[in-house]
Amino acid sequence: MIASLSKSLLSHGFRELAAINLNSLRRVSQSKCLDISGVYPPITTPFDGDSGQVSHVKLEQNVQRWSSLPFRGLVVHGSTASLPEDKLIIVGAGQESTRATVEFAVQSARAGANAVLVVTPCFYKGRMTPDALERHFARVADESPVPVILYSVPGNTGVDLPADVAIRLAAHPNVIGMKDSGGEIAKIGYIVHKTRERGFQVLAGSAGFLLPSLQVGAVGGVCALANTLGAEVCRLQELFQRGAAEDARNLQHRLIAPNSGVTKRFGIAGVKASMDWFGLYGGPVRSPLLPLSEREKEELKKIFTEEGFLKS
Amino acid sequence: MIASLSKSLLSHGFRELAAINLNSLRRVSQSKCLDISGVYPPITTPFDGDSGQVSHVKLEQNVQRWSSLPFRGLVVHGSTASLPEDKLIIVGAGQESTRATVEFAVQSARAGANAVLVVTPCFYKGRMTPDALERHFARVADESPVPVILYSVPGNTGVDLPADVAIRLAAHPNVIGMKDSGGEIAKIGYIVHKTRERGFQVLAGSAGFLLPSLQVGAVGGVCALANTLGAEVCRLQELFQRGAAEDARNLQHRLIAPNSGVTKRFGIAGVKASMDWFGLYGGPVRSPLLPLSEREKEELKKIFTEEGFLKS
Amino acid sequence: MIASLSKSLLSHGFRELAAINLNSLRRVSQSKCLDISGVYPPITTPFDGDSGQVSHVKLEQNVQRWSSLPFRGLVVHGSTASLPEDKLIIVGAGQESTRATVEFAVQSARAGANAVLVVTPCFYKGRMTPDALERHFARVADESPVPVILYSVPGNTGVDLPADVAIRLAAHPNVIGMKDSGGEIAKIGYIVHKTRERGFQVLAGSAGFLLPSLQVGAVGGVCALANTLGAEVCRLQELFQRGAAEDARNLQHRLIAPNSGVTKRFGIAGVKASMDWFGLYGGPVRSPLLPLSEREKEELKKIFTEEGFLKS
Amino acid sequence: MIASLSKSLLSHGFRELAAINLNSLRRVSQSKCLDISGVYPPITTPFDGDSGQVSHVKLEQNVQRWSSLPFRGLVVHGSTASLPEDKLIIVGAGQESTRATVEFAVQSARAGANAVLVVTPCFYKGRMTPDALERHFARVADESPVPVILYSVPGNTGVDLPADVAIRLAAHPNVIGMKDSGGEIAKIGYIVHKTRERGFQVLAGSAGFLLPSLQVGAVGGVCALANTLGAEVCRLQELFQRGAAEDARNLQHRLIAPNSGVTKRFGIAGVKASMDWFGLYGGPVRSPLLPLSEREKEELKKIFTEEGFLKS
Repeated sequence: MIASLSKSLLSHGFRELAAINLNSLRRVSQSKCLDISGVYPPITTPFDGDSGQVSHVKLEQNVQRWSSLPFRGLVVHGSTASLPEDKLIIVGAGQESTRATVEFAVQSARAGANAVLVVTPCFYKGRMTPDALERHFARVADESPVPVILYSVPGNTGVDLPADVAIRLAAHPNVIGMKDSGGEIAKIGYIVHKTRERGFQVLAGSAGFLLPSLQVGAVGGVCALANTLGAEVCRLQELFQRGAAEDARNLQHRLIAPNSGVTKRFGIAGVKASMDWFGLYGGPVRSPLLPLSEREKEELKKIFTEEGFLKS
Repeated sequence: MIASLSKSLLSHGFRELAAINLNSLRRVSQSKCLDISGVYPPITTPFDGDSGQVSHVKLEQNVQRWSSLPFRGLVVHGSTASLPEDKLIIVGAGQESTRATVEFAVQSARAGANAVLVVTPCFYKGRMTPDALERHFARVADESPVPVILYSVPGNTGVDLPADVAIRLAAHPNVIGMKDSGGEIAKIGYIVHKTRERGFQVLAGSAGFLLPSLQVGAVGGVCALANTLGAEVCRLQELFQRGAAEDARNLQHRLIAPNSGVTKRFGIAGVKASMDWFGLYGGPVRSPLLPLSEREKEELKKIFTEEGFLKS
Repeated sequence: MIASLSKSLLSHGFRELAAINLNSLRRVSQSKCLDISGVYPPITTPFDGDSGQVSHVKLEQNVQRWSSLPFRGLVVHGSTASLPEDKLIIVGAGQESTRATVEFAVQSARAGANAVLVVTPCFYKGRMTPDALERHFARVADESPVPVILYSVPGNTGVDLPADVAIRLAAHPNVIGMKDSGGEIAKIGYIVHKTRERGFQVLAGSAGFLLPSLQVGAVGGVCALANTLGAEVCRLQELFQRGAAEDARNLQHRLIAPNSGVTKRFGIAGVKASMDWFGLYGGPVRSPLLPLSEREKEELKKIFTEEGFLKS
Repeated sequence: MIASLSKSLLSHGFRELAAINLNSLRRVSQSKCLDISGVYPPITTPFDGDSGQVSHVKLEQNVQRWSSLPFRGLVVHGSTASLPEDKLIIVGAGQESTRATVEFAVQSARAGANAVLVVTPCFYKGRMTPDALERHFARVADESPVPVILYSVPGNTGVDLPADVAIRLAAHPNVIGMKDSGGEIAKIGYIVHKTRERGFQVLAGSAGFLLPSLQVGAVGGVCALANTLGAEVCRLQELFQRGAAEDARNLQHRLIAPNSGVTKRFGIAGVKASMDWFGLYGGPVRSPLLPLSEREKEELKKIFTEEGFLKS
């Protein structure tokens, strides 16, 4: 089963994050009240520089590093080995069809996922009406063996999951939260406001607005930047939680530019380049993505340096 | 001079807010260090229901009501009578051409404006490059007798003033701040981070993200909702300032839906309809804007009622 | 009256084309059946290089040149001198408010305009519903002394006038046609199909799709490129009309890249630069628009040269 | 091999068109000079109403019907049975990763595809630079055993393949053409103009602009409407080819509204509903797509009736 999931994920070819080594996944008990609060890196997939194959050795090394940080878990599109017992594994399971998404969720659960993260379908964007989206997520939640986290990332999909749809779906016993990467803070606050009684948990989709999201009631974040600056992103949440408002704001300020560098500006190529600087393995990106040019690398390095995360 | 500005503003026909009665404008001393922190309503223009003319009587009554609130000032596209001495008048002066904007700023200053709010030109959006925008604002600031506040409102203009341009312009001695209505909180935080030493002042462009903006370092907001719920919007800033985080968050949450109702959802017609419910004069909108239908009014009223601002 | 229109147009500051010398406007009899078929340049406004003022001398010279071409008329935002008797003058009269648009249309008619071109209002784009747009244009048409031509240019305004609204408005006796710059050829064909019996006349908004527009039933075009390559654009329509399909296609092909150069790529700065190469007066652009850099000029010149309109 | 392709296609779950019955695919000799001119329906996948499974019987029946029309071939995401010898099979093979696209192309070729249609990757749209897109398509073309047809459909993907990239790729011996669904007719004309000497073949991506595309030099179209009105779409190309300009224009006019109905307005649910009216099997759509409501069906039927394709 695990082998077939791994293969299925690898063949899926939909995003950077592919399945890898599933043979030592450990289980965390799941329930409707799974607490997902905290910080997660959506982990990159290490490709071997020469063969272009997934490097299990490098992945293992990265995971070891990440395991030493106070992450709540990892978000993967496959899954990984040797996680400590207290970490969650959330698997990205969204597909264009409802049926395929359900199948992916079932397979992910069998392989040990604690929850699945389900992005909005988007190819037929003109027909992704509120009603169509609500039915899609409801059916996936009906059939998924593990809790479902909604995922809205309009910058990539061109589809924004409306607040009202998320609020209605929050009443479903198997929909436990949402990752919102749109960055519209009023929307995040409104969803929190309308779903708090049900224990619906909202995660910021980026370190660029993690603190404001926490301040309006989000419980954590899935942050690409946490691949590289994991300790700092975790510290931001910790500063918020113990009321160190000034320190939190200062750290949030310093994270914005590096975060833009590894998201909007350079994307995954930026994440991987920066991982290399911090002792993790970033390695090559998968085509059609291009690696950063030397000039782009310098630009990104300058941003990390100016904000004090790299020494000049 | 005052008469000509009034006429010029009325003939401009660009936005809801037209010039009106300027004969009793009082002056506030202006300087490079004008402190603009606080809440402002961008005031609506009252049209007489029968004639379609601007009603000076209704305007006077509205201004009296607003003057009793702890607003820092009013944002107008013309200007108004009988303000208490401690209120600022900020005039929207942006035009499509640089020269016309300068002329408008000069006239506004002569008529008593404390500062001008200058929106990005937008008709030739494909050519509004960072360089073109920077030169435009710099020249307006060079020639404006009163301080300039940059204004980015991509939802209406299709042009987003880039953070880097705003940061460079913050070095200009006559550019004292920025109103950002885009709602991208990371951008607001980044601009604060990079300009704080220069005393650059950022205002949130909407009550929907006022608290998160204050938390990342903004100094106030220009909020359409303040036309109607002025006391509540001011209270939000006050709660933030005295560290009442929980109360602030709860109030922010309750303001989001009413704010969406009078901005994205129903626009100026929504502002005016809600003003009528709160003892202010909203009155008719100017064509091509349409008044709310009865059904739309009910929808908006329901939002205000659900959040506890109207009794059911 | 003429002086006041000129002044009003100049103060409007909305687009490149400002009013100028109105004292020798001649009249063409207007009627509901005004035939507007043919090619029009939306003429640029010549600014004096030193003073930045409108140069009446240069304008006169340009108009003389254009008058020698088989244009059907000129589209202006003010108006011009010394046109031969058979040319139409169409004045761009659209404003953000309905009332201001009516006033502009009345003034334009008094100054001698044969028709007015009325762009969609766009600042409050979220509220420019089909209903709001239809009422706006209908009221302008009710009150305009000269025929109204609808104008949709979503690339600049962010508002696309829906085909169904245009088709309904075509029933109004004073709405005689439409300029569509969106470039969606199926929309143009559909509008022609549904309005042909009423004699509604559609003009392509760009030389880049003039031939396909004529082939689906448009009657001409308002083409920025006609400022520079007026003879060629007129010849394209003439080739179409006499059934020289192959020649027409070849010419259309050659016009696409120069047209993109003076519209999407470089805008008005491109039009003006290219006018200078062809013995017309382009001159400086108005800030915030920037002139072409030397490198941009070379790029544009190369396009005109490759397609055989300039010698290398 | 055929079985594995079929399975792979079904598991892909990316679009409506899934693989089906591959056991009687027949081969057409392929070469760099494969002539793809003509009309193709991108065929829908028939799902059984009760089981939700692909219905091979219904597919066979549809294909029989389509085979009787003068289509140049079918565009599929899997493939089909019992095609006459002279029909081409073009398989949609685009994936988010270059490697997966190559694998898909290889499998498609083995299963009998005459060419592959490769859509732009789009999830990381911010990084789909001209350079990244060019390298992606070039590598796919390098490795695909059958000719590659580029595919740009910005309405679904948010990524528009730039004309210049297409023109450069046209020099690749294994890139034989392009399907453009963006509907920007000037772009289509320009690509034809710059690639004609190389024999690059452009296909319109919609029946809504098939005639204008042919007139600027396209060689045919891949038209969703051809699933339903296949004879009429083929007749449009035939009228164009024998110079019946007036008849062609009239037919094109009548096809625009039905075409919008089955694309922008109602999408695949519209195609399938209309197939049912014309004796083909449309059947249910795949979730998250929703079937048309009764009211939507009436609306669509009215459009087909008004244009004379259905009797009232």
